[in-house]
Amino acid sequence: MSELFDQLTPMLDRSAALTAALALFEWDAETLAPEQASDNTGKIIGILSDDYFRSLINPEVKLLLRKLEEPDNNKQLTLEQKAVVRELRRTYDQLASIPGREYSEFCELANKSSSVWAKARKNDDFKSFEPYLEKIVEYKKKFAGYRLKSQEQKDDPDAIYNILLSDFEPSLSTKELDEFFELIKEELVPLIKQVADKQDEIDDKFNTQTFDVQKQKEFNEFLANYVGFEKEKGVIAESAHPFTTNLHNKDVRMTNHYYENNLITALFSTIHESGHAIYEMQIRDDLTLTLIGTGTSMAVHESQSRFYENIVGKSKEFWKPIYSQLVDTFPEQLKDVDLDKFVKAINKSIPGYIRTDADELTYPMHILIRYELEKALFKDEITVKELPKEWKKKYMEYLGMKEDTDTKGVLQDTHWSSGDFGYFPTYAIGSAVAAQLYYFMKTQMEFDKLLEDGNLDQIKKYLGEHIHQYGMIYNMNELLESVTGEKFNPSYYIKYLKEKYGKLYGLD
Amino acid sequence: MSELFDQLTPMLDRSAALTAALALFEWDAETLAPEQASDNTGKIIGILSDDYFRSLINPEVKLLLRKLEEPDNNKQLTLEQKAVVRELRRTYDQLASIPGREYSEFCELANKSSSVWAKARKNDDFKSFEPYLEKIVEYKKKFAGYRLKSQEQKDDPDAIYNILLSDFEPSLSTKELDEFFELIKEELVPLIKQVADKQDEIDDKFNTQTFDVQKQKEFNEFLANYVGFEKEKGVIAESAHPFTTNLHNKDVRMTNHYYENNLITALFSTIHESGHAIYEMQIRDDLTLTLIGTGTSMAVHESQSRFYENIVGKSKEFWKPIYSQLVDTFPEQLKDVDLDKFVKAINKSIPGYIRTDADELTYPMHILIRYELEKALFKDEITVKELPKEWKKKYMEYLGMKEDTDTKGVLQDTHWSSGDFGYFPTYAIGSAVAAQLYYFMKTQMEFDKLLEDGNLDQIKKYLGEHIHQYGMIYNMNELLESVTGEKFNPSYYIKYLKEKYGKLYGLD
Repeated sequence: MSELFDQLTPMLDRSAALTAALALFEWDAETLAPEQASDNTGKIIGILSDDYFRSLINPEVKLLLRKLEEPDNNKQLTLEQKAVVRELRRTYDQLASIPGREYSEFCELANKSSSVWAKARKNDDFKSFEPYLEKIVEYKKKFAGYRLKSQEQKDDPDAIYNILLSDFEPSLSTKELDEFFELIKEELVPLIKQVADKQDEIDDKFNTQTFDVQKQKEFNEFLANYVGFEKEKGVIAESAHPFTTNLHNKDVRMTNHYYENNLITALFSTIHESGHAIYEMQIRDDLTLTLIGTGTSMAVHESQSRFYENIVGKSKEFWKPIYSQLVDTFPEQLKDVDLDKFVKAINKSIPGYIRTDADELTYPMHILIRYELEKALFKDEITVKELPKEWKKKYMEYLGMKEDTDTKGVLQDTHWSSGDFGYFPTYAIGSAVAAQLYYFMKTQMEFDKLLEDGNLDQIKKYLGEHIHQYGMIYNMNELLESVTGEKFNPSYYIKYLKEKYGKLYGLD
Repeated sequence: MSELFDQLTPMLDRSAALTAALALFEWDAETLAPEQASDNTGKIIGILSDDYFRSLINPEVKLLLRKLEEPDNNKQLTLEQKAVVRELRRTYDQLASIPGREYSEFCELANKSSSVWAKARKNDDFKSFEPYLEKIVEYKKKFAGYRLKSQEQKDDPDAIYNILLSDFEPSLSTKELDEFFELIKEELVPLIKQVADKQDEIDDKFNTQTFDVQKQKEFNEFLANYVGFEKEKGVIAESAHPFTTNLHNKDVRMTNHYYENNLITALFSTIHESGHAIYEMQIRDDLTLTLIGTGTSMAVHESQSRFYENIVGKSKEFWKPIYSQLVDTFPEQLKDVDLDKFVKAINKSIPGYIRTDADELTYPMHILIRYELEKALFKDEITVKELPKEWKKKYMEYLGMKEDTDTKGVLQDTHWSSGDFGYFPTYAIGSAVAAQLYYFMKTQMEFDKLLEDGNLDQIKKYLGEHIHQYGMIYNMNELLESVTGEKFNPSYYIKYLKEKYGKLYGLD
């Protein structure tokens, strides 16, 4: 039986090799490639992308896939092979549903649109970007439309957006997200207001002093290793925006960006990206370089990075054993900053206009706003033209923020310019998954004590054993159910934020 | 007519993209990739190499190539297209002549052999390496044998080695190389002896002080740019052994290796690798990412790196405008070293046992020895088993050097362990080509004055216009003839070394 699956292997191996090559080119472009390289290198990437497409989308794969899905054949596959077949189907339908020429047109448009967006953001000129965004939205609607199967699905006004969502997190749809964000709105909006009124109680002015970048780098390298980033399997470099990528489980790469007048930002980028990296480093050797050899979804990935960044990294217990080393690195700048003051500063919450600068408490509001706008857009309830106005309305409503420019508003994120609709929700879901895991893990181990003892390895091992090793074998809800005994449950997230900020700001 | 050629273009584009991807992986492995990555990454590289092979070696390419070689079709091609067809034929015959399975077996053997060699070198244990080297030589003989065409060729005892040579420098065969090395022997052996007797006259002890590596890096970066390396089109990094590679003409990458107790080595690695890099950066935009979009041969490439390293970089005139900057970088270490003393030190000649440490004068003797041994091996005049003994004999005869270990003898270079026979001669030919170009260029420009004025740009432009821009359109002899009016002529090299070392050591 596995003979049928074996016939697929060379094609899957090729697609994995090309995926890795494309990841290396992307990494290189962000971290190292010379200024003038992009045109020629773009040509190379175009050819390799096309090869990737054709490595999976061809009559031979189509036929084998159909055979492997037949119940009699499928039941003879191993668990891993079944997951590969399931994933191949998802990828196949996603790629093959779009006519080749339309896909090329879209890629060209997205490429152009991204650079128009960058210029529009710079010049606070939404009007120039508007026609591109309109076309992007049209294409995304059309492409998702190709994947509607039943009549029932075609009649469902949420179906299009649900398809977009499923590309980033297959376990969730607007039904669950509506509930999730409703809860967020209800519970967090009042809390955020309470906290905002007390924002002067936390003093983080020390963070605007000058912090030598070379010294920051050295401390952050220590920090990455301390958290669990294994340098024998990874690379750390610098780029404009921090990110993590990987070629396979023994070559995982993350970047950071250092600011001379901000110590805290790079610290938490390091811990965040280390969370992503640890996930990829702990995926099983037999899964890496297969279709299921990476984190199972954007949301679960984000849950791991946010687990490390916020739950682990922003706790007092985490810093207890290592804070003195940070002080030793910057003795002058931190001479009046004790551990308590530092921990308060890294958790300070202030409503702001920029998502990427947001603290843990206000962050989900930024996502809520994007989610509501995306959904409305794909249900034809609002138009692209109306986005700036709607955006401002929501920032006023949920965060009490008023900002006149679109640069700091609807133009602040790059995602939409390249058509990544459905991506934002995974950021907030990730935080909620992290909280759910956290409360369960506290029943399984002396969590705080492990942190105080600097025993991060135990936590890493637990996540490796229960989540990371499986790659894409299980989806988010399957993982959560097997670890915590229940599916995704956002109430832990609310509980976590209420407890944490209640304590921090002395609220009842 | 160009329709026929156009049919070839997509396949050539794919092979170029895969070549660039493989170059990026190789660069990454040498400069950045994590310790544990190699097994998984090796699998990726294997798949991409196979794709590269199949992008060129297939029935469609075979047929098109044959059609494009038909005189009626060929005469309608542009100069560049003709060169592509010629180069495709060379590559096709080289790759397609070897049965796929044998090629895979050889690659596996070469991979294993390289690691056995590394261990053998470390342990001074030629015996353990011997059986691997024997098999490598057998394979190389067999593979070259597949490319023998006429009966005349089959009867020629030099034919096998000539085929190996042609892979690195198509313009030369044993006939020219025998003459070249005969001249070297006759003229240089006595000169080397004369100079060796006077080696105490030059004091280079200052070079063994401590030189901060970070400061070295900064100066070397300046030096690369000064020589003509354009950082908008290139990357500089570190690796165990300096090398240059490129993805295309706007992405050229070179490495260096720094030693805390040796200032001079890294300086000349920088200038040498910059020479290679400048060549690739000046190749025409319409040629890059084609089969003829790189330096025309190893020998011509080496001529450019050695032209910069030795003729330009080891001259007093070159250092005149910038030596004070080096002194400012290392004021304490260079306080007693004036320009004259520095220039003498960088040109000091001492016979040694290690090729890569050799000075300009003794360097060709190391190559001569390897050439004679390679030729004898492939003419079945000696066996692999006899190599260590023959090696020692020749080092005594030509350089008066006695060394008991094989670590510093026949095991010192990696080339043979992976089957790169025929490569070494290009190093010496490169120096000779550089000298031939030099004497001609002196008739065309005020060479010394340009150096004294720091006007390296003029020299770079000249080389770009007359050599670099053409990529592989012309071969070595065609280039030399079009620039200097004559084919390869080693007498300039002898003249150059005699003049230079005569002056330096006050010989008549």
